[in-house]
Amino acid sequence: MGDAISVEELQLAARNHGMPLEALRWDVTPIGLHYLLTHYDIPDVSVHSWRLEIGGLVERSQSLSLDEIRTRPSVEVAVTMECAGNGRVHVEPHVVSQPWLLEAVGTARWRGTPVAGLLEDVGIRGDAVEVLFTGLDRGVEGGEEQAYARSLPLSEILAGDAILAYAVNGVPLPPQHGYPLRLVVPGWYGMTSVKWLSSITLLSEPFDGYQMRHSYRTRQHEDELGEPITRMAPRSLMVPPGIPEFMSRSRVVPAGLCELRGRAWAGESEIAGVDVSTDGGKTWQEAELDDDALGRWAWRAWRFTWDADPGDHELCCRARDGAGNVQPLEAPWNVGGYMNNAVQRVAVTVTE
Amino acid sequence: MGDAISVEELQLAARNHGMPLEALRWDVTPIGLHYLLTHYDIPDVSVHSWRLEIGGLVERSQSLSLDEIRTRPSVEVAVTMECAGNGRVHVEPHVVSQPWLLEAVGTARWRGTPVAGLLEDVGIRGDAVEVLFTGLDRGVEGGEEQAYARSLPLSEILAGDAILAYAVNGVPLPPQHGYPLRLVVPGWYGMTSVKWLSSITLLSEPFDGYQMRHSYRTRQHEDELGEPITRMAPRSLMVPPGIPEFMSRSRVVPAGLCELRGRAWAGESEIAGVDVSTDGGKTWQEAELDDDALGRWAWRAWRFTWDADPGDHELCCRARDGAGNVQPLEAPWNVGGYMNNAVQRVAVTVTE
Repeated sequence: MGDAISVEELQLAARNHGMPLEALRWDVTPIGLHYLLTHYDIPDVSVHSWRLEIGGLVERSQSLSLDEIRTRPSVEVAVTMECAGNGRVHVEPHVVSQPWLLEAVGTARWRGTPVAGLLEDVGIRGDAVEVLFTGLDRGVEGGEEQAYARSLPLSEILAGDAILAYAVNGVPLPPQHGYPLRLVVPGWYGMTSVKWLSSITLLSEPFDGYQMRHSYRTRQHEDELGEPITRMAPRSLMVPPGIPEFMSRSRVVPAGLCELRGRAWAGESEIAGVDVSTDGGKTWQEAELDDDALGRWAWRAWRFTWDADPGDHELCCRARDGAGNVQPLEAPWNVGGYMNNAVQRVAVTVTE
Repeated sequence: MGDAISVEELQLAARNHGMPLEALRWDVTPIGLHYLLTHYDIPDVSVHSWRLEIGGLVERSQSLSLDEIRTRPSVEVAVTMECAGNGRVHVEPHVVSQPWLLEAVGTARWRGTPVAGLLEDVGIRGDAVEVLFTGLDRGVEGGEEQAYARSLPLSEILAGDAILAYAVNGVPLPPQHGYPLRLVVPGWYGMTSVKWLSSITLLSEPFDGYQMRHSYRTRQHEDELGEPITRMAPRSLMVPPGIPEFMSRSRVVPAGLCELRGRAWAGESEIAGVDVSTDGGKTWQEAELDDDALGRWAWRAWRFTWDADPGDHELCCRARDGAGNVQPLEAPWNVGGYMNNAVQRVAVTVTE
């Protein structure tokens, strides 16, 4: 973990929001505690003039009001969403961008209409291969003025569970979560779920805008193209036990039995297990996984009973998925500082 | 402004939440955008077992359920709340604590029952001089294990507008704002408005707990007592105009007429005026103040039309209150980095 961050990085940390890790205790993250990454500014949207424009390689272009979208078939899905830059501060050498530690995650119940059904209704032309989602949030990045825009393969949309969401946890989207309408793509890192959606455009070739071509790729060197970032790698986080010291955030726990609790999630394959270490990752024991009451796309709760001896300890947890992927002990490095799913480490002092 | 902050400070910035300054556009800050400073952890409170204990120098001690508090007379008041540490990153020499830039503010409509009426109903004994409010949030600070606790003079409570709030912006308090009940003291810095309230205790002497004796005082040296921090000094902030550059957050604005908008507030005396500078504080012009539709305890909106010439500019705004206090150009310094209400500076590039 680097020693210092710049005031430019702090400006991002001060306006974006992490989920304090004690909020892992809730199955569904309360509004206001879910992580929040806003590339530019939260736009000021009037729902009266707002329309979703659907165009490009479709049979019938559409300009839909929110009411028209709300009358379509709807589903509600619990989704764990994580920023692809979560864990960035822990990678070395240091990468300059939004300086997340581990808190860029949250789970919400999103209600909306499936994207696949909407596109089938407007008619997909045979030469369409990608679906471009463009937001109303505008800014300058890499010297380019742009609206935030990301694409997905059409096949991914047709086979997947992506929705256009207008409600979260039972209420209309608040401004910061994409009011009046956003994309939610279960299993993928958060950059995919474009907020403040203004248009959906079907394309005959992959979109090469800034957020596809430059950002959100794993590259070992600035001058290589790298691989696009897609689904969330396995991760587990625990509620830090005991009470915190204000400044260091180190924890104080009384000796004796201590139930550790946390959550684990993965985008490619389901969570297969969670292991806990109470000696800084030297030895591991399996935690008990709760059932998947929230469904495939949300985190799984786990618990582990620790018999805490007086002294200093380092607690760790690591998730494994069904494809055999497991969280590493050391942070992986790439140019953007993405997808660092190294195990969490929690310093704890156990008192007599 | 210092060059770097530590990872310890970043840990605080990542879990506490600033209000992105574009949210100044809303009269009442949407839930999830209001600033949030949690000293320790957000506690896990079951409303079924929760009680508010009222004791100390009262005629009839009470143990009240939330339902009992909700049946009392209620008021709703719009309150602008700001952290006493807002602006801390801009003070020099650098002060290590929660590293706020300017975003530790928000306005909410709090509903609850007046504290004065509740205390009168339980009977105030003649020797009571202070009212102590204790929260359920526990941690270690300055080497002392403590529940967060702050007091106010009884005279301040009896003459003032403090309420015990159980709802915000029309909904029950979310966990992070003090569920199920918190104190809200209009006009005072945020540390006064104790969250997750567990008890109210009337005392015969001033309370000297850590948050009164050590924190939240203006001291020039560690070894002096200093003065307690009370009401908010005047401050004005503007919505940064145009669009941002992702990393630097500098702004790009097209040439021509540009309406600058912002808010101003003060805790001692009402806002008397707001001035705007478009040349980094060398010259000032008066902004137009909106009416005080939100009432005495909330921010006042202001606007100023700027004829933006191409080139680089530094925009500033400063508030004046009715007692003649005005925001300084340079940050004041004290040991805790409190009450820095120096003028905001916004770097803007105007394009042809």
